[in-house]
Amino acid sequence: MGRQRPGTPTLEEVAALAGVGRGTVSRVVNNAAGVRDSTRRAVRQAITELGYVPNLAARSLAGHRADAVALVMTEPDWRLFGEPFFTEVVHAVGDALTDTPVQLLLTLVRTDTERQRFVEYARGGRVDGVLLMSVHAEDALPDMLAKAGLPTVMLGRRSGDETITYVDADNTAGARGAVAHLLDTGRTTIGAVSGPLDMYVAQCRLRGYREALEGAGVTPASSLVVEGSDFTEQSGRRAMADLISRRPELDAVFAASDTLAAGALDALRAAGRRVPRDVAVIGFDDVHPARPTDPPLTTVRQPLGEIGRTMVRLLLEEMEDSPAGRRSVVLPTELVVRDSA
Amino acid sequence: MGRQRPGTPTLEEVAALAGVGRGTVSRVVNNAAGVRDSTRRAVRQAITELGYVPNLAARSLAGHRADAVALVMTEPDWRLFGEPFFTEVVHAVGDALTDTPVQLLLTLVRTDTERQRFVEYARGGRVDGVLLMSVHAEDALPDMLAKAGLPTVMLGRRSGDETITYVDADNTAGARGAVAHLLDTGRTTIGAVSGPLDMYVAQCRLRGYREALEGAGVTPASSLVVEGSDFTEQSGRRAMADLISRRPELDAVFAASDTLAAGALDALRAAGRRVPRDVAVIGFDDVHPARPTDPPLTTVRQPLGEIGRTMVRLLLEEMEDSPAGRRSVVLPTELVVRDSA
Repeated sequence: MGRQRPGTPTLEEVAALAGVGRGTVSRVVNNAAGVRDSTRRAVRQAITELGYVPNLAARSLAGHRADAVALVMTEPDWRLFGEPFFTEVVHAVGDALTDTPVQLLLTLVRTDTERQRFVEYARGGRVDGVLLMSVHAEDALPDMLAKAGLPTVMLGRRSGDETITYVDADNTAGARGAVAHLLDTGRTTIGAVSGPLDMYVAQCRLRGYREALEGAGVTPASSLVVEGSDFTEQSGRRAMADLISRRPELDAVFAASDTLAAGALDALRAAGRRVPRDVAVIGFDDVHPARPTDPPLTTVRQPLGEIGRTMVRLLLEEMEDSPAGRRSVVLPTELVVRDSA
Repeated sequence: MGRQRPGTPTLEEVAALAGVGRGTVSRVVNNAAGVRDSTRRAVRQAITELGYVPNLAARSLAGHRADAVALVMTEPDWRLFGEPFFTEVVHAVGDALTDTPVQLLLTLVRTDTERQRFVEYARGGRVDGVLLMSVHAEDALPDMLAKAGLPTVMLGRRSGDETITYVDADNTAGARGAVAHLLDTGRTTIGAVSGPLDMYVAQCRLRGYREALEGAGVTPASSLVVEGSDFTEQSGRRAMADLISRRPELDAVFAASDTLAAGALDALRAAGRRVPRDVAVIGFDDVHPARPTDPPLTTVRQPLGEIGRTMVRLLLEEMEDSPAGRRSVVLPTELVVRDSA
């Protein structure tokens, strides 16, 4: 047992003063049946006398709420909480919960052990719901949470057949619009730096790229697509260098995130290509970058603030009542034209 | 009451099957006295039959642990979790807890309402301890947590007379060493861009600056010190511009953080001063910057990894037993000489 909390009267003290057992105090606090009126009165008097406040764990035992939701990232490194994409979502979620009694808790899950630990924690009545960010296709966490009966809302989808409530941007349409812009501005040999293709978001953005080309009567060449191993600048640099050596004549590239695009810009600079004159570049996300790109990046804006707010709204709805069928939301994106394309 | 959790047997089902009240099941689960052996056997049989797992909230009622600690920032904006300084500490704390059963939860407290909400949450038996980052001098949260009996460890101190267990870098000695380096390399008119002086960390770094000058027989001039309103690049730019206009002849500046130093470098560049030739610049922290500075920054390295690990160690010790007197730790810093000074 932990150390005593000075000044905070305990359930044991109430029980001692009322001359009853712990369980009886608990039953009175929880308005359970099976307690004599005289006993109930004695317990209530002891509670008043000591200034005892039943703690929230006790309330949650009685079926009340924890008034907390967890926002979980499944990523290998705590530092990823520092990625502008995630800080924007966290900020929107935090703001959406400001005027509620709900405590927001951020946490990271990296391994199977941590996955199990988190589910144990969450189903122990300490959070009422879970928001999930950055879920990979084969991640078991969403289903573990669903099985534990915890209301859960995901940012994005694991597949086109997602069973958990989600909020997503229309990644396919966003990518299609970006590549259509490249075609409209006269580009003919358009490469793609995709994200890791075990993520549905990366699959969608690559599909949008292919659909735009096919819509213009161009057959997408596999030599023009390189998969980044993650959404980092380093992956963007490597993939772009690869593309340049494979297809030196390319005149445009669609990168599946702004961080990939920033890396691609570095690789193009290193190869002596001017942007947008030699090669046009479009990114995806439009989050405030760690460093401004040179030239300023044309990109597909994800409405991260609206995504965060919508996640909170859907989760609070799921927490209030049984979900009435599928309520997932796909939000439109917007092409923001700056200088790079 | 929240919605049912399918597949998870409830305390009520155990009670119904055993033919007893909820309170009795609770007493059996918690090994409380006052339950007849035959009743206890019936309850245990029902528990086995249904596969009932007492949830953690119930265990915490029984005095067991929540196996969770909260890491709290008291800052106005969730985005500050993205600051490299904080992501490094969070990373170290997360790593230090990897092989423990303890769940790490990050949260932000911005207002008095949120302060109250967090304390209610924490004292409800849902976390066993609290790590505090970025506490301002007049912040009431540490004392609220102490009064609630929650083991608490702070990053840094609110004052020289801190009552809560803390882990801090030796900020005064670090700043003194930085300014001594400027004096040793022949600088004579050394300005300071301080942090917000309602923070003890900023007071210490400014004290170190003054002590180094006094140690060299130089009287610190108030015209050479400008206070940043926070630890951002913008504050650094403003403060440096102010310093240049007040004391155009200055040949060095000590900035109380790397972010302030990055802003100061911008302001010096804008004023046409070359670094380090015209003006030498030293920062503080040595965290991986959002963008590399030009020139690379000479700075005072805080051992953030060791700080995070030490915070965890002290907190786990406090959670295990009553604290045996003061156990706060002050860790040494290191001057990292690069190109800016």
